[in-house]
Amino acid sequence: MSFLEQEIAEQPAVLRRLMAEEAETVRRIGAAIREFGPTFVSIAARGTSDNAARYIQYLLGVHAGLSVGLATPSIHTLYETSPNLSRALVIGISQSGQSADVCQVVQDAREQGALTVGITNDPQSPIAQAAAYHIDLHAGAEQSVAATKTYTAELTAGAMLTASLTESAEMQAALTQLPDIMQQTLISANQVRNWVERYRYINQFVCIGRGYNYCTAFEISLKVQELCYVTGLGYSEADFLHGPIAMLQPGFPVMIIAPDGRTLPTVREFLVKLRDRQVERLVISNVEALREDSKQFVSLPSGIPEWLTPIPAVVPGQMFAMLLAAAKGNPLDKPHGLTKVTITR
Amino acid sequence: MSFLEQEIAEQPAVLRRLMAEEAETVRRIGAAIREFGPTFVSIAARGTSDNAARYIQYLLGVHAGLSVGLATPSIHTLYETSPNLSRALVIGISQSGQSADVCQVVQDAREQGALTVGITNDPQSPIAQAAAYHIDLHAGAEQSVAATKTYTAELTAGAMLTASLTESAEMQAALTQLPDIMQQTLISANQVRNWVERYRYINQFVCIGRGYNYCTAFEISLKVQELCYVTGLGYSEADFLHGPIAMLQPGFPVMIIAPDGRTLPTVREFLVKLRDRQVERLVISNVEALREDSKQFVSLPSGIPEWLTPIPAVVPGQMFAMLLAAAKGNPLDKPHGLTKVTITR
Repeated sequence: MSFLEQEIAEQPAVLRRLMAEEAETVRRIGAAIREFGPTFVSIAARGTSDNAARYIQYLLGVHAGLSVGLATPSIHTLYETSPNLSRALVIGISQSGQSADVCQVVQDAREQGALTVGITNDPQSPIAQAAAYHIDLHAGAEQSVAATKTYTAELTAGAMLTASLTESAEMQAALTQLPDIMQQTLISANQVRNWVERYRYINQFVCIGRGYNYCTAFEISLKVQELCYVTGLGYSEADFLHGPIAMLQPGFPVMIIAPDGRTLPTVREFLVKLRDRQVERLVISNVEALREDSKQFVSLPSGIPEWLTPIPAVVPGQMFAMLLAAAKGNPLDKPHGLTKVTITR
Repeated sequence: MSFLEQEIAEQPAVLRRLMAEEAETVRRIGAAIREFGPTFVSIAARGTSDNAARYIQYLLGVHAGLSVGLATPSIHTLYETSPNLSRALVIGISQSGQSADVCQVVQDAREQGALTVGITNDPQSPIAQAAAYHIDLHAGAEQSVAATKTYTAELTAGAMLTASLTESAEMQAALTQLPDIMQQTLISANQVRNWVERYRYINQFVCIGRGYNYCTAFEISLKVQELCYVTGLGYSEADFLHGPIAMLQPGFPVMIIAPDGRTLPTVREFLVKLRDRQVERLVISNVEALREDSKQFVSLPSGIPEWLTPIPAVVPGQMFAMLLAAAKGNPLDKPHGLTKVTITR
């Protein structure tokens, strides 16, 4: 069995461990943020961790009323300057904790007096050391180059942080269900095995998600890029309608993340547009009514709040990317020319 | 002749008119921002205008020391909440000025006491009216669905705003050269006609740019998506190395924006990686030494500061997308299923 398959399967256990081990740390960080009272939030990350940042952008925006921007690390490194972050909460996210450019943003922010938090899988890493606070993902070593368990752990860390900051008992209660939800989702996602062969020869792919699941669209596209060598595009359906939809010919494979919640009405309208264009619709949803209008459908557990759905919703996408890579004969653990730790300036 | 071709050719005249007509307004806005003293900046936009926002993110970050985030309009619309923007400069950018979600962000921000600026091509539009200040693009009606002249006008408005805010005589002086620079670039970009046929059958494309030209990578990819129906991906080379580079097989077409400046050393290292993978390199640069190591090369005018390069650098990409669409037999002015004004919630 590949490391990739093992690590996808480990996710329920990783999230259970993360929530148990880091509860107290996250409680302290929440209190520190309330005391600091940031005017805004900036998150520095690259690759998969940047997709976790997109999730936290919505969580803190909707639940904590904080305006969250994604940092542009090259301003700190290549242009050797630092925007004013003194009143900000600055979060650096990196699985390895090694990204030099992300680390520079955290260091600059801390020197300016910002409240800094690192989220990494290694408490000894430079980013963990540079930040005033650190959340350890407790994901165990990730051997596969394509990140899976550290991604959902990063999302969970962001949700824990938001629940702690807002002192929301409702969010805390929902989070305790997460390991079971992930286990159920792994079982449903096995359906992908029955139909993935159909897509053996695709070389283009689009994944659509909105709001909380904007991150899911990006993350599934990234997995498809790096494992399947397919040009995968992640889009919000709102941005997609502003131009890229012109690309869609009949049969074009489009995965749509459509959980129950605030985004559902606009996503449903979008599905009608896709049907009119005879697009091949691969739907990930807990709304059973969407099944009959899909070419492929993967069930998500029902009855979970929309803000929590990105954590299970990525799992069928991880499975799709892994199984499609296998169908294509690509290596699963070490894609062509990639290394586990990428250090960019 | 298509509207698209006319509008690409109009760009020098549009920018000259914009700078003449809006100089006084932009001077007043710069003074108002200095007086307000924003703690951070949030920019709301969709599609092409979101790429202009990415440029302004670097301009205000490097030159004005302001942390700039891109807003997530659905937090305001679908989730019906508004993050705290009371200490922010909030900029809404939209060619038509009609985007309902962008308008909502501007309205919410203004009610909270933020300093609001609209950048549109229509002073009567909802966004122009909702914002406290407005910069009119003076681009004339844009008849082609694919935005070209309004995009470079949006970038120029952002550069004018930054020059005014920082009271930089050096930036002002550089801007006066811009219409001539655009004229020269249009002439060089004509080279694309000699080689675009080679790419008639591509269906995948990547465009790479970093720092100031991160926006250029996104904007050229978007033009290729909407006009050529090709899955075009825009990436910073730093993010691309974190996974997507696995996609690149020999012959894969990659356009690289490589102007002289701070980003050049890392972009050069990246070009070596692409050569090792036998990738087809289409280079847009004012560094002549890169020509011999490129499959195709388009010259940008030399001697211009890096921060100004995104305005001319997109032009060869606009030409490439237009000429490739023509080679494919696609309509130039009204791509399949698009409308000029897209209103999203």
